[in-house]
Amino acid sequence: MKSDVKKLVNSGRLEFAGGAWSMNDEAAVHYQSVVDQFTIGLKQLQDTFGTCGRPHVGWQIDPFGHSREMASLFAQMGFDGQFFARMDWVEKGERLRNLTAEMIWKASADLGTSAELFTGLLYQHYSAPPGFCFDTLCSDAPIIDGDSYDNNVKERVDTFIEYIYNVTKNYRSSHVLIPMGDDFNYQNAAMNFKNMDKLIKYANERQSLGSKVNLFYSTPACYLKAIHQDPLTWPLKTEDFLPYSTDWHTYWSGYYSSRPTQKRFERDGNHFLQVTKQLTTFANLTGTSADSNLDKLRHAMGVMQHHDAITGTEKQHVAQDYDRLLAAAIESAQTNARLALQRLTNLTNGEFVSCLQLNISVCEFTKDGANQVVVTLFNPLARPSTQYVRVPVKNEAYIVTDDSGRVVPSDLLPIPNEVQNLSFRAKQATHELVFSAYVEKLRNYYVRKRINRRSVNEPERDKSNELLAGSDLEKDIQTRAEIVVKNSLVKLTFDGTGHLNKVEMNGITENIRQDFYYYKGAAGNNAEFKNRSSGAYIFRPNGTEFLIGSTVSFSIYEGAQVKEIHQRFNPWVSQVIRLYEGLNRVEFEWLVGPIPISDNFGKEIITRFSSAIKSNGVFYTDSNGREMLRRVRNQREYFKPNMTESVSGNYYPITARITIEDATKRLALLNDRAQGGSSLKDGDLELMLHRRLLRDDAFGVGEALNETAFGQGLVARGKVYLVLGRVKDTPSRYERIEQQQIHLPFWKFFSSASRASSVKVPKIPIFNVAQNVHLLTLEPFGTNERLLRLENILDKTEGASVTFSLRPIFDQLGGEEIRETTLDGSMILSDMSRFKFQPEGSKVRKPEYYKSAHTPLSAKKKDSSSKFSITLNPMQIRTFIIKWK
Amino acid sequence: MKSDVKKLVNSGRLEFAGGAWSMNDEAAVHYQSVVDQFTIGLKQLQDTFGTCGRPHVGWQIDPFGHSREMASLFAQMGFDGQFFARMDWVEKGERLRNLTAEMIWKASADLGTSAELFTGLLYQHYSAPPGFCFDTLCSDAPIIDGDSYDNNVKERVDTFIEYIYNVTKNYRSSHVLIPMGDDFNYQNAAMNFKNMDKLIKYANERQSLGSKVNLFYSTPACYLKAIHQDPLTWPLKTEDFLPYSTDWHTYWSGYYSSRPTQKRFERDGNHFLQVTKQLTTFANLTGTSADSNLDKLRHAMGVMQHHDAITGTEKQHVAQDYDRLLAAAIESAQTNARLALQRLTNLTNGEFVSCLQLNISVCEFTKDGANQVVVTLFNPLARPSTQYVRVPVKNEAYIVTDDSGRVVPSDLLPIPNEVQNLSFRAKQATHELVFSAYVEKLRNYYVRKRINRRSVNEPERDKSNELLAGSDLEKDIQTRAEIVVKNSLVKLTFDGTGHLNKVEMNGITENIRQDFYYYKGAAGNNAEFKNRSSGAYIFRPNGTEFLIGSTVSFSIYEGAQVKEIHQRFNPWVSQVIRLYEGLNRVEFEWLVGPIPISDNFGKEIITRFSSAIKSNGVFYTDSNGREMLRRVRNQREYFKPNMTESVSGNYYPITARITIEDATKRLALLNDRAQGGSSLKDGDLELMLHRRLLRDDAFGVGEALNETAFGQGLVARGKVYLVLGRVKDTPSRYERIEQQQIHLPFWKFFSSASRASSVKVPKIPIFNVAQNVHLLTLEPFGTNERLLRLENILDKTEGASVTFSLRPIFDQLGGEEIRETTLDGSMILSDMSRFKFQPEGSKVRKPEYYKSAHTPLSAKKKDSSSKFSITLNPMQIRTFIIKWK
Repeated sequence: MKSDVKKLVNSGRLEFAGGAWSMNDEAAVHYQSVVDQFTIGLKQLQDTFGTCGRPHVGWQIDPFGHSREMASLFAQMGFDGQFFARMDWVEKGERLRNLTAEMIWKASADLGTSAELFTGLLYQHYSAPPGFCFDTLCSDAPIIDGDSYDNNVKERVDTFIEYIYNVTKNYRSSHVLIPMGDDFNYQNAAMNFKNMDKLIKYANERQSLGSKVNLFYSTPACYLKAIHQDPLTWPLKTEDFLPYSTDWHTYWSGYYSSRPTQKRFERDGNHFLQVTKQLTTFANLTGTSADSNLDKLRHAMGVMQHHDAITGTEKQHVAQDYDRLLAAAIESAQTNARLALQRLTNLTNGEFVSCLQLNISVCEFTKDGANQVVVTLFNPLARPSTQYVRVPVKNEAYIVTDDSGRVVPSDLLPIPNEVQNLSFRAKQATHELVFSAYVEKLRNYYVRKRINRRSVNEPERDKSNELLAGSDLEKDIQTRAEIVVKNSLVKLTFDGTGHLNKVEMNGITENIRQDFYYYKGAAGNNAEFKNRSSGAYIFRPNGTEFLIGSTVSFSIYEGAQVKEIHQRFNPWVSQVIRLYEGLNRVEFEWLVGPIPISDNFGKEIITRFSSAIKSNGVFYTDSNGREMLRRVRNQREYFKPNMTESVSGNYYPITARITIEDATKRLALLNDRAQGGSSLKDGDLELMLHRRLLRDDAFGVGEALNETAFGQGLVARGKVYLVLGRVKDTPSRYERIEQQQIHLPFWKFFSSASRASSVKVPKIPIFNVAQNVHLLTLEPFGTNERLLRLENILDKTEGASVTFSLRPIFDQLGGEEIRETTLDGSMILSDMSRFKFQPEGSKVRKPEYYKSAHTPLSAKKKDSSSKFSITLNPMQIRTFIIKWK
Repeated sequence: MKSDVKKLVNSGRLEFAGGAWSMNDEAAVHYQSVVDQFTIGLKQLQDTFGTCGRPHVGWQIDPFGHSREMASLFAQMGFDGQFFARMDWVEKGERLRNLTAEMIWKASADLGTSAELFTGLLYQHYSAPPGFCFDTLCSDAPIIDGDSYDNNVKERVDTFIEYIYNVTKNYRSSHVLIPMGDDFNYQNAAMNFKNMDKLIKYANERQSLGSKVNLFYSTPACYLKAIHQDPLTWPLKTEDFLPYSTDWHTYWSGYYSSRPTQKRFERDGNHFLQVTKQLTTFANLTGTSADSNLDKLRHAMGVMQHHDAITGTEKQHVAQDYDRLLAAAIESAQTNARLALQRLTNLTNGEFVSCLQLNISVCEFTKDGANQVVVTLFNPLARPSTQYVRVPVKNEAYIVTDDSGRVVPSDLLPIPNEVQNLSFRAKQATHELVFSAYVEKLRNYYVRKRINRRSVNEPERDKSNELLAGSDLEKDIQTRAEIVVKNSLVKLTFDGTGHLNKVEMNGITENIRQDFYYYKGAAGNNAEFKNRSSGAYIFRPNGTEFLIGSTVSFSIYEGAQVKEIHQRFNPWVSQVIRLYEGLNRVEFEWLVGPIPISDNFGKEIITRFSSAIKSNGVFYTDSNGREMLRRVRNQREYFKPNMTESVSGNYYPITARITIEDATKRLALLNDRAQGGSSLKDGDLELMLHRRLLRDDAFGVGEALNETAFGQGLVARGKVYLVLGRVKDTPSRYERIEQQQIHLPFWKFFSSASRASSVKVPKIPIFNVAQNVHLLTLEPFGTNERLLRLENILDKTEGASVTFSLRPIFDQLGGEEIRETTLDGSMILSDMSRFKFQPEGSKVRKPEYYKSAHTPLSAKKKDSSSKFSITLNPMQIRTFIIKWK
């Protein structure tokens, strides 16, 4: 059978479309994980089928809205175009009417033609024409020919041909693409082909009667090739297709926030995947076991990108299975990490434990008091970084030293009661030890309890690590006056009710008030449009939002490194606000849940920052964590949207950043996972943190999004970062850098200090490229090859091109040869030749092709250093395969 | 693929079980149609696959109870055994406990060992073991092996082996048969075999740990062969497995009567099939078209025997499709009949119209007054017969003449108002012309209007045909006295309320009262046993019966040939009672419907004949129209039944006859279609005529049995015949002959008299065998062959063996060679060798085999006449294939 399939592929009769590990979502995914999952998918196709197995078109037929970044990535991977099925119902109607359902998507404001992608909308969802589903799960009539009472050939062919004419009316070309299939289909090839064979035969027999319809088996790529050869021009598209709406009351903007803990766990998975890919590379781990350990996490992350995984739109037991899968995969990858670190550090027997619950200050390894713990920090970025590290401990005095034995200043802060009291967190650490660490790529820090008597070897006493007792400012809120907390860079002011109401930083003062609210989820029967429920897919608030905690109880802890304000808004919403010395941002770590439902209302919890910034209806949101898109409240690029649902219709996916600005001030929120967000009023920004709903929204989950754990509603925790800046300083540039460090901070491994030895360890490569150059990927790539991806993370409004030599990296990685490839790594860049379609207004010419805009790098060890010089234009990603010895 | 399948069949890896055109019901079918549908099924297998395609076992896994006749037919067809799945729940439990679920069924009281059949009950319905359904429509977990979190091999194999041990405990052999499959299964071979392969592999691996379970792919016939070789003996069984019950309240005795009009239409189909098979043979019609016309009706009749067709347990639209199919098939066969009759009669252009609605006196061809109509009568029996013929006409005077021009006496009788007023019967005949006809095999009668002036050629005036005006006895019922209607053989007495209350015939006088009643159908939710509804399958009366029409209005019409009593019991129940001169029986033609449901009760209508015959709990019912079985109220052969439902639990299928008797008197009812019936009280006999119900009974139909037509409840009409006799005269013998004539009376074809010509027509063979020899089948059987089946219709209590020469028939059919075969016609009888199993109490011997009890006939034209002598023992059927030139 394998050989038959290969024959079909080689003869072009069977073709892959898409080709990633899963058909990923486009709203809640981060581009790094999308690139990764296409890399493994396309590599698998390449390894299995060779060049003929390579997909030529993206096939995103099910995701609930479409991001511009996805289109850009397809172009960068050398795809000729993409097709999808879901588009806002108003826009879809207009585009079909206007013959603009197929277009050239200029998918990047920075990358020019190299990110242009032909994009086509399917006519009727992703389904076979109505009545022509021939599959085990369909009950459409088969095509019955011959001498039978039930012979229906005429009627079925009439119906099909009429359908074809209806499709043709809505598209520019006389070629039309009719998908045959649907969800859960293709269970019975005999049934399918028997009927399609008949349909083709009998429809084509009509040609002798004058029919112009010629049916044949085809593929999306063949269709694309046919229309590429047509003398046609195509409309342009520059923004994206989000949010997605299917009727007056149904905006698919709930899933931007559904299952917040799983959305965060997926980010942990990506973080650890990048760490272990790099560690496996640096330690030169090879062999089946090392590959397999890494592949498990690559594959699990591929699955997590699925449009019913990262989206949170799966059933509860499926969600739990995804969590299990990802946890097991992390465990596998952890084996590589440990082996690598045992080679790369002096801890040749180190445990190198990863604590996955540090977000709630839980670490089995350190909880009993951090008695001589080594904290090994791995920095996945391409340059050295300074970051604050937090270690959960008991309420004792500690000394932190670096790998030279130097004492490092540290603070000890209490873990908020709301976290300590989490029912499933019994007997864990009560405090966190906080210190600042500087790491090039890999470094050990040592934590030990302070011993009362001074021993000979004990370094000078560090006074900074004193329990911050007596600083508790919890007072009767009625009498509380304005309260100020500040450090050298940021000053926060809280009003008498305990709410943040002013932020001063970067030379700007702005009255920024933060509140928590909840929307009640609409609870309908979904039978009619107006009866839609809020659910896993759909966000549909039932009326306006309700304020949570008009007054806030709180405590303040002021250390030398960090100031913390612990706020409690109500029994199920609390928060820690942190100012770290030297960091130009405010951190808000929220804790939401269990969301009460005893009133029989589902609730969707948001936090909102209100300012006086004159944003004039405009806000900016990231596209999958890379480029920013301009949003205008109640508007879309192409059409006038139906705004019956004025809240959910203005929600966009925020996977990294949402900002507003006026002529002088700019306010940005960065987050730690995908969330829905908006600016519903000038000066405001809101993010949805958590959702708990009591009805299904009838789009396939079949369950209400009512997450529980430990016998109660699920509790979620996460971080939002606020940056207030002066527009003229281009704070966006700073936000980018922060964004990167939030996404890929140091990974912490814990070992017992007693495992340390004095063996000489291999030198780990130190990258030190410009601050805007991101080490997007460094991983083993087949036998004796490594994949290296570098990215300029600044766009053209934020920075310029950067040119540098790859020679140092190449040498450090033991390179013998290097070749540049398409983004996915499986095609040599010089081989790329994509269909170029003619924009409207241009003269129709012969078919044209996109090629790489620059001369792809291809060099060997013996080549001169100058040959290794590369330039990264704003937002450019370049991918290289390095052969090593 | 065809060649692959043939290879599998030839190598014994794929085997057919059953092999008929459909898996027929066993309660409502007539044996003639079962034999027919096995004949075509087995022939098709033989023609397609040769000897290896021949089934060895019956596979009646779904029918709702099992008849003795079916087992007998299997034995006569050379089957080694049969398996089924449904048995009364109490009996099933006992048989499994007692290791008697497999047995030797002595399936005929007359045929001895040649009708013995090994019969096995499957352990768990006809399903794969719970949890082991591997099919598209199942959601059982697949067997997951290898390095998977979900690996479930151990648990699945444990479960399966435990199941095997449970099965083994209930059967005598160490071999066990585990079916893998279910209703609507086998949609995905890959899914099925992938899992079964794993199951077999991993279960058998347990043998190295001491497991005694060895799984392998097998077939029912292989299983049977294995246990045939076992040194085991088996219990005997002599009666049948009817009725079928699945819990305290659920007797599957409703379907014996469901859809009475379809059950009757099926009988018309059989009648016409026998007629056209014979006509096609006699006229030597050959060629594809003639074969195909006949095959359509053969196939349609094969479908009609299905256990969800003749049973009436299909959805309404399926029932309608069956009707359509059968009607179209009759139409096809009609083409053969017409061609044959044009060859065989002097009407070389005759229309030979068949009127399928003669049961309600509708015939388009005659309705306008029978102006010179030829009535061509075809007699399908093996001997000449005299029968009364009825032709629907208008109220005028008619002359009937035979094919010699002789006037035949006739009566003209009004059609009852209740029939005339049927809403869908507008503008049809108002009267019926009745005359007695004598037909050897084929004969024309001529009907024409009487012309007032006597013409030269007009024969002597026949005085008998006068409108029977003035004989209307409809009177005020309050003042009515006893009324007597009689002819030379039968005398009926009606009481003052208009009910029959006395019958005198055959020298016996008995007070027999006839009434109509209805049961209310139980209307439950089927969720619990006690909540079962009466439905298409299930008969469950809600309480006792309700009398219909305590007083009856009626009219009497007395002709010379026929006396008719037209009774009206209520607006939806009426009846015509008929006495035909010279016929020793009383005919009751009932008309029931539309059954009212405005009171929200479903109703099941019966007629009951009550007598003083001391039947002592015993009554007799036919088995598929052949042998009779003794029934004892509230008892069964093997077990004590649960009689919570005392009415439906005593119901049995009546496909031809039900009788009671005491030391001197015997009362028999013969019917015209399958019906449920019983003797609930000594001296009583009842038949269920019609059912209209408002709830589904939750066994798969998914609809209530609520038949409607023309916008109201369905109206049904049919006949019951009563024979009262003296036990010492063996009236059963007479009943048998009547039964045959009721089942296969003359078929009437209508043509215009003007089509007659004087061409010489071929002579049609005249059979004239003994009265107890039935021409069960005469049909074309492949190229230049004819199948002839002769049956002794009397059992050993009714008659003796009959010996005669086949030579005259052989010669008349142009025979060249003749060979005797098994009942189905596809296997030479001398090749038959069936497994013989050892009965309990016998000494265990080496495997034995059944062979034919007599020397099969095999002769050629040149052989002496004496070689053609055959004997038919009581109830014996012998089947011959005659090669002709």
